[in-house]
Amino acid sequence: MPHTYEKNGAAIYKESFATIRREAELERFTRDEEPVVVRMIHALGMVGLEEHVQFSDGMASIARKALEDGAPILCDVRMVSEGITRPRLPADNQIICTLQDPRVPEMAKEMGNTRSAAALELWRPQLDGAVVAIGNAPTALFHLLNMLEDPNCPRPAAIIGCPVGFVGAAESKDALMQDLPVPSMICKGRLGGSAITVAAVNALASWKE
Amino acid sequence: MPHTYEKNGAAIYKESFATIRREAELERFTRDEEPVVVRMIHALGMVGLEEHVQFSDGMASIARKALEDGAPILCDVRMVSEGITRPRLPADNQIICTLQDPRVPEMAKEMGNTRSAAALELWRPQLDGAVVAIGNAPTALFHLLNMLEDPNCPRPAAIIGCPVGFVGAAESKDALMQDLPVPSMICKGRLGGSAITVAAVNALASWKE
Repeated sequence: MPHTYEKNGAAIYKESFATIRREAELERFTRDEEPVVVRMIHALGMVGLEEHVQFSDGMASIARKALEDGAPILCDVRMVSEGITRPRLPADNQIICTLQDPRVPEMAKEMGNTRSAAALELWRPQLDGAVVAIGNAPTALFHLLNMLEDPNCPRPAAIIGCPVGFVGAAESKDALMQDLPVPSMICKGRLGGSAITVAAVNALASWKE
Repeated sequence: MPHTYEKNGAAIYKESFATIRREAELERFTRDEEPVVVRMIHALGMVGLEEHVQFSDGMASIARKALEDGAPILCDVRMVSEGITRPRLPADNQIICTLQDPRVPEMAKEMGNTRSAAALELWRPQLDGAVVAIGNAPTALFHLLNMLEDPNCPRPAAIIGCPVGFVGAAESKDALMQDLPVPSMICKGRLGGSAITVAAVNALASWKE
């Protein structure tokens, strides 16, 4: 007997989002923030994630505006850049991931840092006014913070900081919210990753659910 | 003052995996399974994930052997196919994702199913002996189970079933372990996603940590 299941994509989304809104604690989020958190919970399949999500004041509306105005989206890994849903982008925004650039391994060696961190040096020409989405490497987020200590470094419009893991992830996200070089959003602690980072970008790009 | 942090990729991996092995409950897993679960926990940044991971008997060794023998890897979404670390593959294995095939939207309409499910119909020529990695869509996993009810459908060597979410994810994974058309592994319940699916493939592809 073939399995029967919900086959309508729109119905699946609707029921999923309704379940999340019924179960999650979303009261503390603004109207601009709430759909971002809902989509992040959806991507991870985990109610409770909302406890760890923090926005600096106005980040969600600033990031939405930047995307509407055509900001490029700078991603640390291809799992983020590939996950972003192109038709949701308000201005056919450029999506950039420099990790596979052939110059990166040599740059990493010279810098004594990871490839993920070195790849950010290639962001400089597009960094001004961009939306940054870091969904994997704590070293990338730390390196970005160090780049932004230089007042001559171009400033992104907003940073989504959701690196994941057991070494430096929690610390790099705390450092982002403490430095706060530009409006930022994080998922505190070890939890993070490309899926919730992509979900945040997709939610900031469009109100469509 | 610039932030100081661990910049050595190998040291980061080593410390991360040691932390996971110190904190997680890994005793019930075999030698073939344990590194898979460790890497999944690493990808999600969540000790406790191990409670939800189930392997059918021998799945991990069968999947490792299939990859060594050159099995193609069939993925439901590009966040999975893009995340697999090519240098870890033992036989330069082909990685296939058919979701963006231009025929898929029309096929989905005709089938009255999602694009994720329809895309699997294009797997048939490569399905025999393949390793399947489903990291997003419950409808894809359900459709695969229905395809495999036909005894004339080619059989994959093993299935990694980790779709995520609130509608059908838990049900599709339970159905996989109940039908068990071929050796399979799941992350029970709502938790799943491309990150842990990629982690499972990367761990089955190579013992290297």
